[in-house]
Amino acid sequence: MPHALKLTPLDRVRISIDCMGGDHGPSVILPACKDFLDAHPDVDMLLVGTTEALAPAARWPRCTLVTATEIVAMDDPVEVALRRKKDSSMRVAVSQLKADLEGRTRADVCVSAGNTGALMAISRYVLKTLEGIDRPAIASVIPNEQPGFTTMLDLGANVDCSAEHLLQFAVMGSALVAAVEGKPEPTVGLLNIGSEVIKGSEVIKQAGELLRAAGAAGVLNYHGNVEGNDIFKGTVDIVVCDGFVGNVALKTSEGLASMLSHFMREEFKRHWWAKIAAVVALPVLKHFRARFDPRGYNGAALLGLQGLVFKSHGSADAFAFGRALSRAYDAARNRLLEQVHERIVETLQAAPAQPGDEPVRPAA
Amino acid sequence: MPHALKLTPLDRVRISIDCMGGDHGPSVILPACKDFLDAHPDVDMLLVGTTEALAPAARWPRCTLVTATEIVAMDDPVEVALRRKKDSSMRVAVSQLKADLEGRTRADVCVSAGNTGALMAISRYVLKTLEGIDRPAIASVIPNEQPGFTTMLDLGANVDCSAEHLLQFAVMGSALVAAVEGKPEPTVGLLNIGSEVIKGSEVIKQAGELLRAAGAAGVLNYHGNVEGNDIFKGTVDIVVCDGFVGNVALKTSEGLASMLSHFMREEFKRHWWAKIAAVVALPVLKHFRARFDPRGYNGAALLGLQGLVFKSHGSADAFAFGRALSRAYDAARNRLLEQVHERIVETLQAAPAQPGDEPVRPAA
Repeated sequence: MPHALKLTPLDRVRISIDCMGGDHGPSVILPACKDFLDAHPDVDMLLVGTTEALAPAARWPRCTLVTATEIVAMDDPVEVALRRKKDSSMRVAVSQLKADLEGRTRADVCVSAGNTGALMAISRYVLKTLEGIDRPAIASVIPNEQPGFTTMLDLGANVDCSAEHLLQFAVMGSALVAAVEGKPEPTVGLLNIGSEVIKGSEVIKQAGELLRAAGAAGVLNYHGNVEGNDIFKGTVDIVVCDGFVGNVALKTSEGLASMLSHFMREEFKRHWWAKIAAVVALPVLKHFRARFDPRGYNGAALLGLQGLVFKSHGSADAFAFGRALSRAYDAARNRLLEQVHERIVETLQAAPAQPGDEPVRPAA
Repeated sequence: MPHALKLTPLDRVRISIDCMGGDHGPSVILPACKDFLDAHPDVDMLLVGTTEALAPAARWPRCTLVTATEIVAMDDPVEVALRRKKDSSMRVAVSQLKADLEGRTRADVCVSAGNTGALMAISRYVLKTLEGIDRPAIASVIPNEQPGFTTMLDLGANVDCSAEHLLQFAVMGSALVAAVEGKPEPTVGLLNIGSEVIKGSEVIKQAGELLRAAGAAGVLNYHGNVEGNDIFKGTVDIVVCDGFVGNVALKTSEGLASMLSHFMREEFKRHWWAKIAAVVALPVLKHFRARFDPRGYNGAALLGLQGLVFKSHGSADAFAFGRALSRAYDAARNRLLEQVHERIVETLQAAPAQPGDEPVRPAA
């Protein structure tokens, strides 16, 4: 595999934060930012929000307050967020990543807990996609049995994907895992309904061919098809799928986890002896829960844009928002944007000639 | 809703069984059949297998032994099962559902634990699809929080589906739940990535329109879009999706359940006090496990064929295979085949005129 990490980490990391997003807004986000600043002397923050909301941060060190007059609501349609709220905290926060005429940006990475559809639309509109990327994707990590994490994308940005889009997701996911988890050659699996190459829809079969070719060319470490259960087994580092399938898989898992937790509580309340067992088993059950506490892996990456944007879960508390800040920080520090760009260029260079690229010749 | 159950249950139920299928074959299937026969005096069985394998059942009451010389292996490609093994136990068992010249069949329902792809291909080839059905689908039940069961289809038979296919799945699923669970007007949800009608791919949006129209016409009890977590919440009785998404959702859930069970065992072994807690909590944990023991809801229906075929999990033990027999028996006893047929006819009659159905007129 010819790829090598040539980039040096940033000296300082500048994070722009939409302080008004999410279910709790500044009441959760500002304390999370303060804790993060205290723990990371190499971080500068651009806090974006209404004048009133930002007042508590007026004297914090290494902070610049940026005023925005509007707020994107969690249930705002994308159109409203994009066209009618041009001075929203979300849009102003994302705009800090935009390069000026001399190529300088005010921030290296942006974090928002606001509405996902609006954040993707605004980021795409303000930043544009990277050259070679047709569609940005949402990538997140999911705990696995290894123990470790599986990175999965797309998780809902693109409902209909072509084989080329899936290849681009694989390349971007590889850059993300290389940058943030320090694995230079992460393995990639294509989510399918069987391990054999003949399985799946036409798009999936074509994507399999493109991924195998990219693997053979050394731009990807392609494992082959994986199935739904492989996400939690940790068979590969990165699972690639379209946004419809990714979203269904993620929400189905959330639903199952919630049902099991509900059943477990019921069982431990069923009899007097079950209640005693609950008291005895409580420390074990608490440790069990903590192991896959979703707050611990909060922070999804919006990949494929000319800027690094991270999305925190809307319901995040200060601890969870801190995790999203941490993932954003790691990505910026390890120059994820440049790594994605570099890998996309490599892939385009290694791509085999497509039928459409050949000169048209008259039939013999 | 105009639909009414007009059918009277069968007096006797004739089940044909592929005794050679699954990971364990006759060693598990024959004992399960014997127990089922003993518990159901209204059942006659056609046991299909090699002469040698069927020897133990030679003197069982209400049993006819049917010899087959070949066996479809769990890893046989569909082509091999269909074209090269014409005297397989699977094919002979399915053929018992085929009507003779006078419209009589030798069995009312068939059960196999063999390879799913082969069973679907053979069933489709031997039995053909019902009029009004383009593609058969695989339906199974999944436990939910209500507590109860969610019926989900398709689970892997069709990787690419049109909106019309999804409508047909909804109609067949409704007939299944009405027949087997005794709910005459089960609710139907369309699996999507959001509850709003504007969500999803083009196919899903079109399917939503067809389902709403069928709901308005009274042939379906359509709830609207549901998301992955609704499968386990039990928001609706029936979740409709294409076979790719259904298969991924099911296998992802299996993977998560397996990971959680693995983590739980690890936690209860971590310290000496955790081991004591495990002993105290064991009866509670056992009851918890039993509540969603997948063996308890074994038996998927292959719907849309001119015959009732049920698929047991390949790894089923005698208890699990008995559950599949039980689901097959309920379906036959309540005349599922006629109910599917009746509902399809109703749907075709109620279907709004399609653009293509209008007489072509020259533009004014």
